[in-house]
Amino acid sequence: MSGAVLILSGPSGAGKSTIIRQAADRIEPYYFSISSTTRDPREGERDGVEYHFLTREAFEAGIEAGDFLEYAEVHGNYYGTSLAPVHKALAEGKLVIFDIDVQGHRLARNLMGDRITSAFITPPSLAELERRLRNRSTDADDVIDQRLHNAKEEIQAIHEFDYVIINDQIDTATEAFVALANTARLKPGRTERAQLVKNWLGSPLG
Amino acid sequence: MSGAVLILSGPSGAGKSTIIRQAADRIEPYYFSISSTTRDPREGERDGVEYHFLTREAFEAGIEAGDFLEYAEVHGNYYGTSLAPVHKALAEGKLVIFDIDVQGHRLARNLMGDRITSAFITPPSLAELERRLRNRSTDADDVIDQRLHNAKEEIQAIHEFDYVIINDQIDTATEAFVALANTARLKPGRTERAQLVKNWLGSPLG
Repeated sequence: MSGAVLILSGPSGAGKSTIIRQAADRIEPYYFSISSTTRDPREGERDGVEYHFLTREAFEAGIEAGDFLEYAEVHGNYYGTSLAPVHKALAEGKLVIFDIDVQGHRLARNLMGDRITSAFITPPSLAELERRLRNRSTDADDVIDQRLHNAKEEIQAIHEFDYVIINDQIDTATEAFVALANTARLKPGRTERAQLVKNWLGSPLG
Repeated sequence: MSGAVLILSGPSGAGKSTIIRQAADRIEPYYFSISSTTRDPREGERDGVEYHFLTREAFEAGIEAGDFLEYAEVHGNYYGTSLAPVHKALAEGKLVIFDIDVQGHRLARNLMGDRITSAFITPPSLAELERRLRNRSTDADDVIDQRLHNAKEEIQAIHEFDYVIINDQIDTATEAFVALANTARLKPGRTERAQLVKNWLGSPLG
């Protein structure tokens, strides 16, 4: 089976990372798309794990070549989603998983909509999201306020996604995600379907 | 979670009935849509199992009321897909499963596309389909020829379906179907999503 694409969006704090980590063993082979950046690695960050760390020259060459699904310059550093590793993983028949925002989902739809299954993942309510963000206490208050503000915008895009996972209970949400990942693999692209029909009709009678 | 719809199409002989039977215990609660007909029950056929057996008057009243997704008159008897039990099952939060042809899939898309996940199920090749149809030897040669002819038309519609299951090995195909059924449940309709957003934003802060 050829590769396929699974896009996950949803507010920061929805539990996407936890779900993917819990499900990882059961959804092989997959490739989790990570962002590229020109900022310096922080203590403990590894190239190819947290980010692809690129030089400014390499990043700008990628922009020139049209290799970025999306990119932005923030405080003098580039951040973006490179498509080169995505195409490689697809050619290897892997499921490519994106954790991107609703705008990234729209861009990806335009580019490879025929291979995409998408889901919006969210805590059961804004109040619950706030509770989780405050409890994990890794973020400053103004960062949390910004995340909640963004979440109120993002939830409006829920109509654009194929599926919705309400992360009320983490194990239930993980089961739903595993089913979703296995289903996403059943989506051959336009070209693969045309080839499938040709082979299907043309097989010599046994 | 509100109900959702899973549509299966594919050539007669693709193994759809076997897959659903094998998966049945693992995809509850679901409602499998069966056809209605005005023909007499054959030996062993039960009302509400093989078919809903209706009088001609009841069937025509259903047509008048717009209750049929599709219907046809064949050799003086009506056959059709009634929507009344579908709406009931959806209201009960069940997954409604249809085994219908590619034309039925198109009609259902127009009517309740926001709730539908669809899959085309097929043996790996036309040659393999022929082998299976001849081996099960329940059909006369001219019936088999007709089924093969229809299959060559149907495979062209593979592009219209969300997902594709190649039934090469029945256990693998059943696993794929279970994932698909569990994923289909993650699809709230348009109205449910609007309600979800309203509730999500409006929950009182805890």
